[in-house]
Formats: sequence, structure tokens, C-alpha cells
Amino acid sequence: MAGQIFVISGPSGAGKSTVIRLVMEGVGDLGYSISHTTRAPRENEVDGADYHFVDRDTFQTMIRKGDLLEWAEVYGDLYGTSFSSIRAQVDRGMDIIMDVDVQGARNIRQGLKECVLLFLLPPSLEVLEERLRARATDSEEALRNRLQKALQEIRECMGYDYLVFNGDLSEAVEAVRSIVLSERHRADRQTSRVKKAFRID
Amino acid sequence: MAGQIFVISGPSGAGKSTVIRLVMEGVGDLGYSISHTTRAPRENEVDGADYHFVDRDTFQTMIRKGDLLEWAEVYGDLYGTSFSSIRAQVDRGMDIIMDVDVQGARNIRQGLKECVLLFLLPPSLEVLEERLRARATDSEEALRNRLQKALQEIRECMGYDYLVFNGDLSEAVEAVRSIVLSERHRADRQTSRVKKAFRID
Repeated sequence: MAGQIFVISGPSGAGKSTVIRLVMEGVGDLGYSISHTTRAPRENEVDGADYHFVDRDTFQTMIRKGDLLEWAEVYGDLYGTSFSSIRAQVDRGMDIIMDVDVQGARNIRQGLKECVLLFLLPPSLEVLEERLRARATDSEEALRNRLQKALQEIRECMGYDYLVFNGDLSEAVEAVRSIVLSERHRADRQTSRVKKAFRID
Repeated sequence: MAGQIFVISGPSGAGKSTVIRLVMEGVGDLGYSISHTTRAPRENEVDGADYHFVDRDTFQTMIRKGDLLEWAEVYGDLYGTSFSSIRAQVDRGMDIIMDVDVQGARNIRQGLKECVLLFLLPPSLEVLEERLRARATDSEEALRNRLQKALQEIRECMGYDYLVFNGDLSEAVEAVRSIVLSERHRADRQTSRVKKAFRID
């Protein structure tokens, strides 16, 4: 059985990285997508496990060929997520969970129809503003801009498969966990096992 | 938000009633469908909670009007499950879980498109036979017949939304629980909450 791809989006302040980390701790056979990078491996980093380490030419070719779902340059090094690499993880039967913005999620849906899109939301406009203010070191105007950007992203959630409010962290983790587990029991993912177990042609 | 209807089918020996009981113990706002009956209420039984107690004329009218999903006569009393009654429970926001055979599940899907169909399976042909043999008090031939009937039912599972193997009871309960919880987070069931929380028109 091939794995499933779970894409999680949500505005800054929704708690995506915390939720993803806790869900991965509690669910077996659920991995994080392995990115490509042009930077040199650090000590203990394993090629194909921590990152796919590639040279700049290879990375540029991937960009040209449209194999990168998203990419960015950070301190002179290139980082990106490759469609074919995710597909290879999934073909090995691994479920993959990815933190991707709304634009990236749209790209993934186009390229990999069978993916499952989750949107994580703060519980209310007021809490969203509180959370953004708590981490903000910038001006009132910059805060307003970030709040507007978050609201624009939230409007995009209507195109997602599942919406999860993160008011209570453990409830949000339980919800995402249940979505990952339930998808494993969809009829189309179990048919071959049923045929084998009961010798149905 | 209206509730969701979860229909569980599966052959004798799949463990439906145990799984349903354990899932209901662990999940809030999940009820069992309330049946109609012509028998007199016992002490402590509450009309509309334990059963809908109706007279024989009313029950016969329900049969004629096609409001009964399934019904049976037991020791001279009539028992049945009414579409409109389930709909009323769901309209109050209650999720409902029902143990229904494959014929009944087909009726429910026709009448209530938005229901979720789960099929519970024993882990293998061998375990199915073992379980049927363990409860069988009848002849080898009767056992063969019951095994054939179970296999016919299993062939119908392909039309269901979710398939859950019940080899390990706690895993099967966790799977059904995750299906019930995940359905609550489907985008179409959360849209009005999102609009309210973020004041989106």
C-alpha cells in the first residue's frame, strides 16, 4: 500500500510546527518530507535521511524542470522540496506530513491529486491577534499587516479537505492524528488487503 | 452543525457490537440510533431515550410510508429504525452510530447520502472460521453455510467508505474512533464556524 501525503497549512500563529511534531511522536510510519539542499552536510547528517545533498547545478536543473514544489535561498544555500522525492517516500509506503503555505498546497494538489489537505486555524480573530502580538517585536503597523496576511490565508482554507481549530493543543493534535489514522482505512487503500485476506479475485 | 451518521456493517464474527460499545465509551456526542417499538416500556425505560414507544397502528403506518429503514417482529412485538427519527437526532447535532446489515446500509446511503459507511472485517478467512466455529452449536454443514454468508457479505465491503480489520480489538476501536473524529473536521462541517470566528462573509 502506497503512503499518503498530508499537507498542513495555516497562518503564522496557528501552531503548525508544534502540532506536527506532537502528531509525529504519536503515530507510527509517519515521516516528514526530506528536502533538497546545496549546503554541505554537517557532522552526523546523512544524505537521503536528513536532506538530499546536491550541488548547485543539480538544484538549478530541478528548478528548471519544475520538480520543486517550493524552494528558497537561505544564507547563500538553496533549499527545496522535490515532487519526485516525496513520491519516492510515499511509494515505499510511508505517510508524509508537510508544512506548506497555501500557494505550495495548491501546487501539491495539482501535482499529486491524492494528497490530503489540512488547514490549522487559531480559535478566533482575537486569539490570532494576541498570538501575533506576543511574538511581534515590530510596530503596530507591521502587526496590522501580518494580521491582514493571516486573514487572507484563512480565507483560502475553504479549498482544504479538513479544518482543525487549534484552541486547545491536545485537541488539535488528536484531530490531526485521527485524520492521519482514518485515511489509512479508506476503502481504496484497503481493497488489496481484503482480497488477499479472503482470497477474493 | 448537524451530526453525522456512521453505519457499521460486517459479517457475524467481525466484532461489531464490542467495537461500537468501546468507541461510544470513548467519544463524546456520539449516540446510538433510537429504535421504534410496539412493546410496552419497561420500568425505568424513557420514551424517546430508550425507544420511541408507539402503538401497532402507528408502526404499520410507518412501514406503509416507507419510513422504516429496517424492521422485524420479535415475540409479537415490532421493532424498527426510522429515517425521520435518525434525521431528528442528527439535526440536534448528534453523531449517530448504527449497526446495520449490508442491505440496510444500501437503504441508508440512498436515503441519507451524507452518511459514512464503515465495514468491520475479521483479519482473515481462518480467523473468521475459528470465530464462527467458537460460537457455533450447529452442524458442520450449518457452519459452512454461515461461512459462505459471511464471505458474501465481505464481498459487499468494496462499496463502503472505510474498511477496518478487527484482528487486534484496541486497534480496531482506535481506527473507528479516528474515523468518527476526523469526519467532524471535514471542511464542509467547519465552514460556518470559520466564518463566525474570523467574521468572513
